[in-house]
Amino acid sequence: MKQTNTLAPLITYEGIEGAGKSTQMFEVSKYFQQVCHRRVLITREPGGTPIAEKIRAILIHPEEENLDYKTEAYLMQAARVQHVQEVIIPGIKTHDLVLCDRFIDSSTAYQGVGRNLGVDWIEKLNAFSTQTLIPTLTFFIDIPVELSLERMQARKKGQRKNDRFESEQVDFYTAIRKAYIDIAQKNTSRIITLDGTLAKKDLIEQQITKIQEVLTA
Amino acid sequence: MKQTNTLAPLITYEGIEGAGKSTQMFEVSKYFQQVCHRRVLITREPGGTPIAEKIRAILIHPEEENLDYKTEAYLMQAARVQHVQEVIIPGIKTHDLVLCDRFIDSSTAYQGVGRNLGVDWIEKLNAFSTQTLIPTLTFFIDIPVELSLERMQARKKGQRKNDRFESEQVDFYTAIRKAYIDIAQKNTSRIITLDGTLAKKDLIEQQITKIQEVLTA
Repeated sequence: MKQTNTLAPLITYEGIEGAGKSTQMFEVSKYFQQVCHRRVLITREPGGTPIAEKIRAILIHPEEENLDYKTEAYLMQAARVQHVQEVIIPGIKTHDLVLCDRFIDSSTAYQGVGRNLGVDWIEKLNAFSTQTLIPTLTFFIDIPVELSLERMQARKKGQRKNDRFESEQVDFYTAIRKAYIDIAQKNTSRIITLDGTLAKKDLIEQQITKIQEVLTA
Repeated sequence: MKQTNTLAPLITYEGIEGAGKSTQMFEVSKYFQQVCHRRVLITREPGGTPIAEKIRAILIHPEEENLDYKTEAYLMQAARVQHVQEVIIPGIKTHDLVLCDRFIDSSTAYQGVGRNLGVDWIEKLNAFSTQTLIPTLTFFIDIPVELSLERMQARKKGQRKNDRFESEQVDFYTAIRKAYIDIAQKNTSRIITLDGTLAKKDLIEQQITKIQEVLTA
């Protein structure tokens, strides 16, 4: 059982589109809930609160061609403020484990590097938005850009609607992937890079092992 | 007639609620359009573009009690980015005069001081959002807080719906007014403080005279 006054670890999932983040996160969550009987909160950015969902709707609306990159960065951060205050902070107080699909590193990679707004500036915004709340552990699920694009293409043919972030090109995702690799190298104590081309079963096992280490530390 | 390649002056109106900014701006605009036959663009913040209006709707919705001050600051800046790119920059290129109700100083006063997020931080956000576009001239219409509250009360009794910014208290507006006085003192070459308790006719005349000086400079 969770001790009083302890905060649950916050585990974030990062990577380019099609890395399998949400699926793996869901499986890991199921394991800790059903097998270990832990109280697990799963969430994602941008979104997760009524205000953040309204902001998300502006962000992913494919017709909003005039959305400036600076606006995009601000809206992401605005949604993050609400998400941290209303979901993550209450979550780490009342659960045993909080898993979040995308967090601060997504902003650094996508807005700082992909949109060329500057890593230092986005890190300043991240710090202001989160009040310096840092994930306990981050899984960067690394896949080649070609695989990312293939998987996005496959999704397109299915029922899932493609959103504006998935309409971008090879150069963009190559830059984002490179940005994630750099962020991971700068934060080795927090970020664990996993080879996203491995079998899902192996990826999930690696994540469970690492989380168990954190929970028993 | 406007010369090719010249940019129209951007004139902003600032002050606490009930200062009469919009009314005076409208009268000044009418004068330059109807008497001087100038092409005048009038606009306001937050808002003025489809995306900015969506953001404004989140900001002023009175039921959104959970709107964090940091979120408010980000949303203001996000709306500003769109407004600058889509309205103000095209406006100063194609018109003789651009008048804007609230701009960067509102963020510094309301978010920096009123919401206690820090003047330096908000000025950094302002600079990032506007790409350092500074108003040619700013009218700070200064009224006592008591008058502001009286006028807000009078509006409440009318048909105009009170929004969340107008639901704040005396201390808040006293801090905002003080912040405006400080900003005006730090920017004497740009900001003209006008006594908002003067007759509307006098206020408008003073504004017209100042704008004519700018237009003929």
